[in-house]
Amino acid sequence: MRISELSAKSGVAIPTIKYYLREGMLHQGEQTAATRAEYDETHLRRLRLIRALLDVGRLSVASIKKIVAAVEDESMPVHQMLGTAHWALSPAVEPEPGEEWQAARAEVDAFVKDLGWDVHPDAPTRDELAQTLIRMRQLGVPVDLAPYVEVVRKLVSEVEMRAIPFDGPRDAAVEALVLGTVLYGRALDTLRRMAQESESARRMSSPPGQAEGA
Amino acid sequence: MRISELSAKSGVAIPTIKYYLREGMLHQGEQTAATRAEYDETHLRRLRLIRALLDVGRLSVASIKKIVAAVEDESMPVHQMLGTAHWALSPAVEPEPGEEWQAARAEVDAFVKDLGWDVHPDAPTRDELAQTLIRMRQLGVPVDLAPYVEVVRKLVSEVEMRAIPFDGPRDAAVEALVLGTVLYGRALDTLRRMAQESESARRMSSPPGQAEGA
Repeated sequence: MRISELSAKSGVAIPTIKYYLREGMLHQGEQTAATRAEYDETHLRRLRLIRALLDVGRLSVASIKKIVAAVEDESMPVHQMLGTAHWALSPAVEPEPGEEWQAARAEVDAFVKDLGWDVHPDAPTRDELAQTLIRMRQLGVPVDLAPYVEVVRKLVSEVEMRAIPFDGPRDAAVEALVLGTVLYGRALDTLRRMAQESESARRMSSPPGQAEGA
Repeated sequence: MRISELSAKSGVAIPTIKYYLREGMLHQGEQTAATRAEYDETHLRRLRLIRALLDVGRLSVASIKKIVAAVEDESMPVHQMLGTAHWALSPAVEPEPGEEWQAARAEVDAFVKDLGWDVHPDAPTRDELAQTLIRMRQLGVPVDLAPYVEVVRKLVSEVEMRAIPFDGPRDAAVEALVLGTVLYGRALDTLRRMAQESESARRMSSPPGQAEGA
């Protein structure tokens, strides 16, 4: 199909498509004449992936480029490719100077070890969790991760990893991992806030006579 | 304390503190002379709240202002104040024109009704979930929210809502709700990605002879 049809089918404006082509996020079409290229379903699918990562995942263009590069680099071993894609999904957290950071980071490392989790020593998730622990303590939020560990263990092993086609083509595995992580991450976050609103409303509308009751 | 001490104790630069004062995000100190104001622990705590919402929650200044206004407006009923704070935590999602959006939104409304959840008809979480469902289907991600509903139901009712002091002072309830939602939301997201990396590594490092899988 022509770029105009690709734009119509994907809902992505032509200048934006050209930007993705220049940035290498979208593979070139087949040049059929000096000023004409043909695009196919793989371009349409890639555009949808990019838009989902931008709109739903709210990832930066830099993160999306890393993910796309990992999908396209056939020489990268599958587990490394998955790791690259996965790490790109982590927000950048700058370690803070000082003992508080070191203590929190050591706590995270011990925590991961105790859980027996196979998480890379340099994984960005370690700094992410360290920062969250520091903020919780600074703000007086009681720290108890146990119920959350229980929940993600169950979700990830019983549901999410079963949806990844580890024995299929490499791009399908990355795509399933990234989309599952981002889209179900968003769904999990939204459903949690829905359940909070519902539970909060239920508690606040308790019978009169109780403090704050409706 | 003077503004210089407030800055030192909070780690927030003086010009930033002055910005928060101008924007009404931080309440004024007690004016003790024409060019001198005294600040106390309430200012320190508010600064920490703002920084946590910015750094950990990654909320916009506009969202933080809404939350602060709800905390400070004593005339607002508690359940409405909690709702305001809670809604501000939702990312802005623009409904898209067309039947696809209407169908997804109707699906969400039916889903919430089936669950018996008390979620406001105009709650932003409904549009958020509709957008996620649309993206899942566009990208061919199988939609099955049941395991996630089970997880958040348990987390929210058995753990998270018990941490909210509904019968205490209004600001304490909002603060606990907002901080718990943001900080444990972040922790949940990070732990989920850690568990994914671990489970993925475990499956990819299975003994030779098995096709990728454990």
